[in-house]
Amino acid sequence: MIVDCHGHYTTAPQALWDWRKRQVSQKSISEKELKIGDDEIRASLEGAQLKLQRERGSDVTFFSPRAGSMEHHVGDAAISAQWSRVQNDLIRRVCDLYPKNFAPVCMLPQSPGVSPANCVDELERCAGMGFIGCNLNPDPSGGWWKDVPLIDKWWYPVYEKMVELDMPAMVHVSSSCNPAFHFTGAHYINADTTAFMQLIQGDLFRDFPQLKFIIPHGGGAVPYHWGRYRGLAQDMKKPLLTQHLLKNVYFDTCVYHQPGIDLLLKVIPLENILFASEMVGAVRGIDPETGQYFDDTKRYIDASGLSAADKQRIFEGNAKRVFSRWK
Amino acid sequence: MIVDCHGHYTTAPQALWDWRKRQVSQKSISEKELKIGDDEIRASLEGAQLKLQRERGSDVTFFSPRAGSMEHHVGDAAISAQWSRVQNDLIRRVCDLYPKNFAPVCMLPQSPGVSPANCVDELERCAGMGFIGCNLNPDPSGGWWKDVPLIDKWWYPVYEKMVELDMPAMVHVSSSCNPAFHFTGAHYINADTTAFMQLIQGDLFRDFPQLKFIIPHGGGAVPYHWGRYRGLAQDMKKPLLTQHLLKNVYFDTCVYHQPGIDLLLKVIPLENILFASEMVGAVRGIDPETGQYFDDTKRYIDASGLSAADKQRIFEGNAKRVFSRWK
Repeated sequence: MIVDCHGHYTTAPQALWDWRKRQVSQKSISEKELKIGDDEIRASLEGAQLKLQRERGSDVTFFSPRAGSMEHHVGDAAISAQWSRVQNDLIRRVCDLYPKNFAPVCMLPQSPGVSPANCVDELERCAGMGFIGCNLNPDPSGGWWKDVPLIDKWWYPVYEKMVELDMPAMVHVSSSCNPAFHFTGAHYINADTTAFMQLIQGDLFRDFPQLKFIIPHGGGAVPYHWGRYRGLAQDMKKPLLTQHLLKNVYFDTCVYHQPGIDLLLKVIPLENILFASEMVGAVRGIDPETGQYFDDTKRYIDASGLSAADKQRIFEGNAKRVFSRWK
Repeated sequence: MIVDCHGHYTTAPQALWDWRKRQVSQKSISEKELKIGDDEIRASLEGAQLKLQRERGSDVTFFSPRAGSMEHHVGDAAISAQWSRVQNDLIRRVCDLYPKNFAPVCMLPQSPGVSPANCVDELERCAGMGFIGCNLNPDPSGGWWKDVPLIDKWWYPVYEKMVELDMPAMVHVSSSCNPAFHFTGAHYINADTTAFMQLIQGDLFRDFPQLKFIIPHGGGAVPYHWGRYRGLAQDMKKPLLTQHLLKNVYFDTCVYHQPGIDLLLKVIPLENILFASEMVGAVRGIDPETGQYFDDTKRYIDASGLSAADKQRIFEGNAKRVFSRWK
């Protein structure tokens, strides 16, 4: 079985985005005003994620709201709470319609400067609805990085609940309002790198030995600079990264060329790597050098020279272990 | 000959940092109050950069003020102008004392929100003093990224002067005051990635076909995600990156482990790679996996399997071409 641990509902029906526009421009709007039929959901997926699953040979995608649309920086905490409910409910419906193809991952109602304790209720609600993980935004300010690092006790209430519910988090930013940071080309990758470095600086997993984070996009710059990070940790008198972080931190395989995947598989222990493509996502074209889609990451794993047993860990085994709520 | 194109005066005498403290805390201070003897300069280098050059077998280092000490975010433009003069004058003295070992690269008197036109005078002054390049900070706000992207016309006055003087720029941030970004573990690497993505978004080199940028630290996350960047450029209807950027943009080899260097050499055209170590810099320890210093990057190039001719380009030829003022 091939599990893609990183997919977003990037192709959600236009009615969702129209409702969102009204939500942020009007004083109040009811969730009941959002009308999306099951047929619209099916249509939004049949020619996109489902088609690509079939063509590329993956079986199930861990599916969450479109990362760029989380927009925790837009509006206040109440806006964010309502938007999270709407988006997560829609993800639940997708997974009810296609229970074999998708498993639900939720967004959280974060808001800049607001305690992450406000995410606990939605996390519990989603756990009750069968969600298997969540996306945690390390920068709710949307490219301005105004909140404290992930190792700060500020974040502990949501970590406590994640551990209690056995919900891993993919550390994933949303869109960028900072003109310096292109969102999928800079902000996403920078956030991955930044989050990992924050974790090096602290001792978070001493306080939360059961907490599990997935760093998406192949870990940002981290595997390429693995020597730098090992060296920085050593200079800071931290334990070896395998001890300090790799019992709790995982990387996905959203790296869109063979040499990048080869490096990832060489440098990071295989038990810390989860297959993912983030399709339909940041890069949608065909690589002229290969004639295949850039984000068809299964091809890179297939061509990596790993043994069948090792591939199985990356395609399935590790995902089952990390997303242990998933059956 | 082996040219290290990326070195900072990280071991400058304490008198420099003491003078700086007085500069930022007092209303005004004369540059004449800074007293550093030639012997102090020699002592600061003999046991550090010069010793490492000898031990590791490099011949000359392109040498600039300590990156973290540029601190363009501290004080106003006048403070920054004076600090740039002081630091650049000291670099000039280093290179006069050791003309075979060091060639001078200047910092610029940038200041957040102040037009880069204010850097033109110092750039000219340094060119007149024989400097061969400059460091350009894409984020003078020190981790808050408040200035416009490098492709904005805001930056054009300094680019015009760089081209006129034939001065390449290493795109290098300074320290980070944003607690989210560890300075050498996140801010540096993020800035490299960010700058490259900004360049993809624009058409800067259509306006400045002679402009030359070096992206340090192996290009941040860029080579590891080369497929992503090729794909994003393609989705944005930009030319192939080889045409769009690689006639003007170069990467250094400050990547502190063999697999990272191997990826860099595989993915980026060899004519775009310049040898560098950034010693004595961000990572100062010995890699327990190799028994060698993490930042002894020459070893990784030596072990890369490149031909002697290709190594010569990376060690010397490309640096001579890019830093064409250097004789």
